[in-house]
Amino acid sequence: VQTIRWEGDVAGSLVLIDQTALPEQCVARRCRDVASVVEAIRSLRVRGAPAIGLAAAYGVCLGAQAASAAGDRAAFLAQLERAIAILAASRPTAVNLFWALDRMRRTATSQPPDRSPQQIASALLDQARAMHQQDRDTCHAIGRHGAALLRDGQGVLTHCNAGALATAEYGTALGVLRAAHQSGKHLHVYADETRPLLQGARLTAWELDRDGLEVTVICDVAAAHVIGSGRVDVVLTGADRIAANGDSANKIGTYGLALLAAAHEIPFYIAAPRNTFDLSIASGDQIPIEERGADEISQIFGTRTVPEGVPVYNPAFDVTPARLITAIICEAGIIRPVDPVSIRRIVGSA
Amino acid sequence: VQTIRWEGDVAGSLVLIDQTALPEQCVARRCRDVASVVEAIRSLRVRGAPAIGLAAAYGVCLGAQAASAAGDRAAFLAQLERAIAILAASRPTAVNLFWALDRMRRTATSQPPDRSPQQIASALLDQARAMHQQDRDTCHAIGRHGAALLRDGQGVLTHCNAGALATAEYGTALGVLRAAHQSGKHLHVYADETRPLLQGARLTAWELDRDGLEVTVICDVAAAHVIGSGRVDVVLTGADRIAANGDSANKIGTYGLALLAAAHEIPFYIAAPRNTFDLSIASGDQIPIEERGADEISQIFGTRTVPEGVPVYNPAFDVTPARLITAIICEAGIIRPVDPVSIRRIVGSA
Repeated sequence: VQTIRWEGDVAGSLVLIDQTALPEQCVARRCRDVASVVEAIRSLRVRGAPAIGLAAAYGVCLGAQAASAAGDRAAFLAQLERAIAILAASRPTAVNLFWALDRMRRTATSQPPDRSPQQIASALLDQARAMHQQDRDTCHAIGRHGAALLRDGQGVLTHCNAGALATAEYGTALGVLRAAHQSGKHLHVYADETRPLLQGARLTAWELDRDGLEVTVICDVAAAHVIGSGRVDVVLTGADRIAANGDSANKIGTYGLALLAAAHEIPFYIAAPRNTFDLSIASGDQIPIEERGADEISQIFGTRTVPEGVPVYNPAFDVTPARLITAIICEAGIIRPVDPVSIRRIVGSA
Repeated sequence: VQTIRWEGDVAGSLVLIDQTALPEQCVARRCRDVASVVEAIRSLRVRGAPAIGLAAAYGVCLGAQAASAAGDRAAFLAQLERAIAILAASRPTAVNLFWALDRMRRTATSQPPDRSPQQIASALLDQARAMHQQDRDTCHAIGRHGAALLRDGQGVLTHCNAGALATAEYGTALGVLRAAHQSGKHLHVYADETRPLLQGARLTAWELDRDGLEVTVICDVAAAHVIGSGRVDVVLTGADRIAANGDSANKIGTYGLALLAAAHEIPFYIAAPRNTFDLSIASGDQIPIEERGADEISQIFGTRTVPEGVPVYNPAFDVTPARLITAIICEAGIIRPVDPVSIRRIVGSA
């Protein structure tokens, strides 16, 4: 399964697995312009902080394709900047999106003055491909570091999907589980179904089961009971943005899980690449939390579940304070304790 | 809305609101025999500990109707006992079911020896109606006691449905909210949608909205964020069985909410009638927890959400330890602290 791939040369297109169709169908969706990439990000056909970043990077390549018809370099760069702005407005919380767009912008603007729009477009595709390969390497490194934290026979609870489908391949939190599994450790994974969009049931269970890991799906509400009954030794999730002090935004429900882990005195780990850190913000208070539409909650597969006229509150993320995070696993190693000094030491050098 | 009603005399029938059809349709379902009552309880057409007890009591009346054809008193009582056993096997956790069936059995067996099956059937209907009226009175008393714990302007988070639809009328936890509202206190209620069967979204939101209370539906996973953001001053739920030490079984997810309330230093209240207490068991360890079918989780309205072949764990209840419960509101007053002595003082005298 390739979550994201670029097909062809600089005149090619972006092909995504449409994650809204899983697990019933595994279908690809081709994006030939910026608008279709934005639509895919907004509607969660592609989701997960690293995958959103990569989709946006390739989206810039599609923007460059269209802009290179402009001929003139200044007009090309102006049109490219508009494409970047449109992509940046697709989702607000995951910082990898902004990180990726910033890299792409710098790639375009740092090209020597004699380069044509076509040459810049080609450099942009090279850059996106390099980021894609970097994400693969990052996930495998996260897996190696994180696997050392898990022991044979443990139960692991995870939330949402921080897997191959959220990254170039292998995954962050699920990369840790894959690496532990591949090193011969037998784990039992509990996957929260993760309302409202059920990424745990639909995506995490699907990809772990395909890879031969033992996984059981539970309703989100069952997590406290499952932890309290001794079935879970570790809670492990991904993250969408991590502040300089370690406060971490992730899928709504993660903060509650971190509190449950603390109450039961089991570790709560986050696995995330260094580009998930946003050292420009001091704490989680400054992370914008996306609020999504009421329909995600009030209707399920076309059936109304909330009475007409009753309001719904649908924040897509919450912020887990650093004090509840036992460690953060990134490609450069394990950040523990989770505090500004440890973070700057491992992430600041990136 | 009448959750449960008996229509006619001793030859009458039981009419239930089919709660699986709400909020899209409010339809009644008539039960003319024990099997249809069992089916209604098992499939959650009628649910909520007090309502299950009342449905079972009327189910015994339907059993008596069928048995009274037997003519002979001994044969009648034997057939009645089989009906009671079938009803008792419908759901395992809520103790009100067993309490109600025990009352009905004692009503039948304590009739003077000269009474005919028809006369006993008539006494059973009188008993069921008395329990029905008692449940109405109980809910209003719980409302009066509990309303004193709430202040104007507070946010209240509730889980599942402990409302009019879970009782004869008015509700337990929702009875408290109704009584506070009727006394002029403005509350903002957050209703957990309550996966897997969405009683919060479908039932609690429906009945509070009809009664003019301000209610917002959230996904269960959003509870920690909503509490952490200061929107919630009190968490309030019902219960299905409470042990002699105060450990309380309620809808899966309640234990997690109690931990969240403790972590945020806000009170966690339970509202439940005295017949929810099971003083025969010392602690929550002895409460049987119903495990329900995988299909409740793995398919939603006919669409598969968990990949084929992946196991699902679906406990319907969890147990909140007494130490996490600030107070229990029952018809005789407020039990606080929640410990064996306070419980025996208020409940043991029932």
